[in-house]
Amino acid sequence: MAKVAILGFGTVGSGVAEVLQANGPHISEKVHAPVELKYILDVRDFPDSPFADKIIHDFGMIEADPEVDIVVETIGGAKIAREFTERALRAGKSVVTSNKELVAEHGFQLMELARANEVSYLYEASVGGGIPIIRPLKQCLAANEIEAICGILNGTTNYILTRMIRSGLSFQEALKEAQANGYAEADPTADIEGHDACRKICILASLAFGRHIYPSQVPTEGITGVTLADVAYADSCGRKIKLLGRAIRQKDGSLITFVAPHLVDGEDPLAGVEDVFNAITVKGNATGDVMFYGRGAGKLPTASAVVADVMEAARTKGRPKYLDWGPGGEDVTVPPDRLKSAWYVRAEASAEAIRTAFAAPSFLARAGAPAGETAFLTQPMTRERLEQALRSLKPKSVFRVL
Amino acid sequence: MAKVAILGFGTVGSGVAEVLQANGPHISEKVHAPVELKYILDVRDFPDSPFADKIIHDFGMIEADPEVDIVVETIGGAKIAREFTERALRAGKSVVTSNKELVAEHGFQLMELARANEVSYLYEASVGGGIPIIRPLKQCLAANEIEAICGILNGTTNYILTRMIRSGLSFQEALKEAQANGYAEADPTADIEGHDACRKICILASLAFGRHIYPSQVPTEGITGVTLADVAYADSCGRKIKLLGRAIRQKDGSLITFVAPHLVDGEDPLAGVEDVFNAITVKGNATGDVMFYGRGAGKLPTASAVVADVMEAARTKGRPKYLDWGPGGEDVTVPPDRLKSAWYVRAEASAEAIRTAFAAPSFLARAGAPAGETAFLTQPMTRERLEQALRSLKPKSVFRVL
Repeated sequence: MAKVAILGFGTVGSGVAEVLQANGPHISEKVHAPVELKYILDVRDFPDSPFADKIIHDFGMIEADPEVDIVVETIGGAKIAREFTERALRAGKSVVTSNKELVAEHGFQLMELARANEVSYLYEASVGGGIPIIRPLKQCLAANEIEAICGILNGTTNYILTRMIRSGLSFQEALKEAQANGYAEADPTADIEGHDACRKICILASLAFGRHIYPSQVPTEGITGVTLADVAYADSCGRKIKLLGRAIRQKDGSLITFVAPHLVDGEDPLAGVEDVFNAITVKGNATGDVMFYGRGAGKLPTASAVVADVMEAARTKGRPKYLDWGPGGEDVTVPPDRLKSAWYVRAEASAEAIRTAFAAPSFLARAGAPAGETAFLTQPMTRERLEQALRSLKPKSVFRVL
Repeated sequence: MAKVAILGFGTVGSGVAEVLQANGPHISEKVHAPVELKYILDVRDFPDSPFADKIIHDFGMIEADPEVDIVVETIGGAKIAREFTERALRAGKSVVTSNKELVAEHGFQLMELARANEVSYLYEASVGGGIPIIRPLKQCLAANEIEAICGILNGTTNYILTRMIRSGLSFQEALKEAQANGYAEADPTADIEGHDACRKICILASLAFGRHIYPSQVPTEGITGVTLADVAYADSCGRKIKLLGRAIRQKDGSLITFVAPHLVDGEDPLAGVEDVFNAITVKGNATGDVMFYGRGAGKLPTASAVVADVMEAARTKGRPKYLDWGPGGEDVTVPPDRLKSAWYVRAEASAEAIRTAFAAPSFLARAGAPAGETAFLTQPMTRERLEQALRSLKPKSVFRVL
């Protein structure tokens, strides 16, 4: 018998309650023991919910109840969620979370605490919603040295970019539509500025490379600078603009992690990932590229990932399996500035000025370009070299080419 | 300390030896114990191989050596491989395999034997080469009731179809090219007739639905009947021809499993899976569609999947985790005949005759079609209904539309 308490009865939390109920017999059979929801903690009451009788308001009840083995944290944020997570772990309860901010900011410390208390801290749902990625990354690719991770990690921005590419909406129009459809929040900052993708690449990179990488160490650029002009130029050379989170282990062992819009070749499987879907490519030294694809967010996909972790916690009670990593540090990452790539540049400059500044630029064209606008792809070079060459020009958009 | 014996020093077996050696420190660190290759069993000698000193010819040495914990079976086939697997399991050794034929034909019995001897029988490499699919299917999607699996499971046929679609090669030309490039064997029957895909969908479906499904229960059609005319008609309606292995749980709980060429919509992520790549879509009732994509074959990708299982076997020694299923039976599957779908038909018949036989057919056109050839898509219907309607016509190609 495993008894579960859910913290936070929002979208994901209520989804977890529903999946536990709808798939209950199936779940209990697989765990070889009943898995039962005992409490739902929220500040609100939900008198009309079928789960109304489980709602409580005092975390102390959960903390003090020895029957509760597993706490599901779907509160979000890194304050109350952190406090309750720490208290639950200290009380000897396993914690399952979908909270990427908390894992990205405090994962190392919480995993240490879980180890000290011989319980699990599981976070499959924190990246990629319902896409299984955390456990496959750790276990199935165990035999590989992981060389790189590259992913479309945020459904909101991918939806906005897809609408810009396919329907010619401006960024602002696409954002409004995303908000109207419930794909973007009223305050969309965390999504469109890349913070959400940043947290997720931190989690994946920490797991893959074994040291905690903090969001503050990851240069992050969102999609607010992407214009329809850029979309058109990308299209003219068979590419699509995608917001990518990337982590790369360089030959010398140093690690580069960053989030930025990229021009992705139309033949690359990532180019075909549209709307709110996510995809994560993992490159292993033996297996080559492997890609995981699916709905990166949403109530039931995310809830099903949480429930899979609940089942794992129930199944491994007393002998937890740790999916953890080592401590962070200033030396863990190096800036992406030395990473060579081709670049896309849109500038107010003549073709001649560009030819003077860059060797063998590949010029792009679009219908309706204003006079004086020039766009081109560079040869592979570092950002430093790029910025030198751009000094005399007026760049409007500068994105890496994947 | 875990000592390993490899059975069969062919492509995959030698890859396993190489990955164990190249990633040795990394592997031992992750398992928290040295993992060491002790024997390689083969009928041949390999005097020039760096592994020459490990080659032996007598399985009895492995069977009798209490130091050997893990046996890697990369012999293939269901005869000698089966005998050695049974003897290894009985001798209390875990067995890791890439042998899809053996797992598809005798998996249930071998897993029972593993349980009886409290050791592991692991087969991640038997499906999808280096793509992690077996463990994610079982563990990460645990919280879902799986509704369907649909996959491009055979790299050889996908390569041939890709060459037909992209370069206009005929089936025979593309097959020859695949053989020249080492993507198809001298006797390509198992690939092009769909047997290989059949074995893989058997394994996936058995795992997902919990009962052994035998290849003999799975109607299987290969790609030898696919012509350039069909490729052109598919293209004219924005579709691509792909060989799919499918398993579907129907509303009444009955299970349909089959392998056949399909017309796949260009927007479907499976349509973008080209060359020797594989992709497997799993539909869960909570998570929706999740797709796994990567190199479905090849020495190092497959070897890395084997080695991941070796690590799992080493890590869980004494308390194996079973990825098994229940017994098969005649009642486990029903024929796909009652599964409704739209159909693609190419026939020697007039548009008029087709309009008489079918309600609202959607006609297709291609350049250079001979007089009297007509191709069309039907409304959704069962195969029985389709065959009735086709009785008076002369169908040349008949494929389902996904």
